[in-house]
Amino acid sequence: MDKPLEAALRHKIDQKTKPLGALGRLEDLAFQIGCLQQSLNPRLTRPTVLVFAADHGIAQAGVSAYPPEVTHQMVLNFLRGGAAINVFCQQNGLALRVVDAGVRYQFDPHPSLVEAKVGPGTRNFLHEPAMTAAELDQCLAWGARLVDELAQTGCNVVGLGEMGIGNTSSASLLMSTLLGLPLAECVGRGTGLTPAQLAHKTAVLQQAQAAHPAPDGPLAALATFGGFEIAQMTGALLAAQQRGMVVMVDGFIASTAFLVAHQLEPRLRQHAIFCHQSAELGHLRLLAHWQAEPLLQLGLRLGEGTGCALAYPVLQCAVAFLNDMASFDSAQVSSSTLAV
Amino acid sequence: MDKPLEAALRHKIDQKTKPLGALGRLEDLAFQIGCLQQSLNPRLTRPTVLVFAADHGIAQAGVSAYPPEVTHQMVLNFLRGGAAINVFCQQNGLALRVVDAGVRYQFDPHPSLVEAKVGPGTRNFLHEPAMTAAELDQCLAWGARLVDELAQTGCNVVGLGEMGIGNTSSASLLMSTLLGLPLAECVGRGTGLTPAQLAHKTAVLQQAQAAHPAPDGPLAALATFGGFEIAQMTGALLAAQQRGMVVMVDGFIASTAFLVAHQLEPRLRQHAIFCHQSAELGHLRLLAHWQAEPLLQLGLRLGEGTGCALAYPVLQCAVAFLNDMASFDSAQVSSSTLAV
Repeated sequence: MDKPLEAALRHKIDQKTKPLGALGRLEDLAFQIGCLQQSLNPRLTRPTVLVFAADHGIAQAGVSAYPPEVTHQMVLNFLRGGAAINVFCQQNGLALRVVDAGVRYQFDPHPSLVEAKVGPGTRNFLHEPAMTAAELDQCLAWGARLVDELAQTGCNVVGLGEMGIGNTSSASLLMSTLLGLPLAECVGRGTGLTPAQLAHKTAVLQQAQAAHPAPDGPLAALATFGGFEIAQMTGALLAAQQRGMVVMVDGFIASTAFLVAHQLEPRLRQHAIFCHQSAELGHLRLLAHWQAEPLLQLGLRLGEGTGCALAYPVLQCAVAFLNDMASFDSAQVSSSTLAV
Repeated sequence: MDKPLEAALRHKIDQKTKPLGALGRLEDLAFQIGCLQQSLNPRLTRPTVLVFAADHGIAQAGVSAYPPEVTHQMVLNFLRGGAAINVFCQQNGLALRVVDAGVRYQFDPHPSLVEAKVGPGTRNFLHEPAMTAAELDQCLAWGARLVDELAQTGCNVVGLGEMGIGNTSSASLLMSTLLGLPLAECVGRGTGLTPAQLAHKTAVLQQAQAAHPAPDGPLAALATFGGFEIAQMTGALLAAQQRGMVVMVDGFIASTAFLVAHQLEPRLRQHAIFCHQSAELGHLRLLAHWQAEPLLQLGLRLGEGTGCALAYPVLQCAVAFLNDMASFDSAQVSSSTLAV
């Protein structure tokens, strides 16, 4: 905590040519980013979305509306520029890197693809832990390394997205386990299940939870329920905290990576900007746990980091008003007749 | 209604590489803009915010936290680029034009300033109608002319903002009168009144309403309660409808101009994108009247068109996904195993 800096930031925000508080959430954002960067003139540089992709053993159990091969097909789609996250990053000026954290497919080299494959998808946690302790360590190290590399190129704001058929199942189990909530509050329609399919998914996840009743802490839960992409996001988040970066948190699955990382490093909260409230059921409950109010509520349920890319212009505007708006003094505008 | 086009738009949206409906409000936006432009490949061109400024006779009655001269001071601030709307337009790639609809100040010519002054502020509606019928006609004509000129330069998406100390008072009276709602539901803190000042404002507006109990229709209400900027926005909205433009509706005051225009031309609804829910009390009630859910809820209460400028990237992303995302076929991604 830097009280003089905080006071100076509040003063700077309050002296802008607008009624006190009239920029609402943008004032909170400007304050948060200023505090994080310890600057009255914060900057967002080289904004980047990292999309982590991986396959999931549990996908064999019919928990998704899509077949498992959609994971690698969508990675190819990312690399060709055809997915929603490509379009939104392009539109809003963010760089995009796609990370093969563990897809069951051999990709040709591609300038936008990072090869960080820990295995050809996780194991099916109905029968055994999704990954070994060594694989978990590898994931955390890969995620951290990617963020470290970004930081070295001058990036100070990162959004984390994901793609992995079956990964809402991992996310629901992580949430239920780490928050001690009933699974029913943590399981949703994912990519679009029917009510009957949702009932099947919930039953499968209950069976998995019964098979692994008490993982010992966040990392054990992460190894048990996966996936590789969630674990790499966790490593990325921890590194972003260490690097002092602004972290854009996307939807349900990315938020469960945040859940794990935040339990390990509570200071991550000051770095986090919750970008979008997913239409996936568990996300609302998860955000409430942090008393986090996401910037956008646009009803998306897609992942890929799309919420981060859509919210980024709001962050830019928050920083821009702090840096570029005139003050009452400089613009010779009369301030309120109210005491401020 | 163009049923084949609507069906083709729905099909195009549904074939994009994402689960059905997974882009939420962006899908609604893409559909709305496609229908409006009668195109499967809609475009947003030369986005522009027009900020209409005017003074208000009622400002003499102590209904604002700021003195009346802040109107012209803020216009000068707009022209120098120091206000929030300048910063947000610059950041998000919108053009900005400032319209002197009736400010009590003589501005020097400026390339960003449109001289459309109908008078040196409205009359005080506590004592007489804010404007004459001739002045109202002038306002509507000016607003329409500005939009016609924009359309001729290739602009097809316009946001309307305003600045005018005292103008929440006009807006509250218009809303109360045209919707038949008690004033208490339509009056808010404006630029930041204390509870005592809010009580004073409400009493003043009740007195004004008693003095003009039954204006005959929306235009009569507009002439009675003003202001010049609200009337010019009304003319601008009607012209934008005629020109087939996308209309970005800002906060409380801009929404009361929309209320007047929409009562005159119900088809305006298809053109309207409600950009931001203001923290000003009456706005929530007004949006509920149209069953409109604004794109953003960022707690702003500033006007100036800031909600439009902040929301514009979301519109861009909606159009971009429709135009640029791959389809399941083109990307060779397996579609859902669910019947769609």
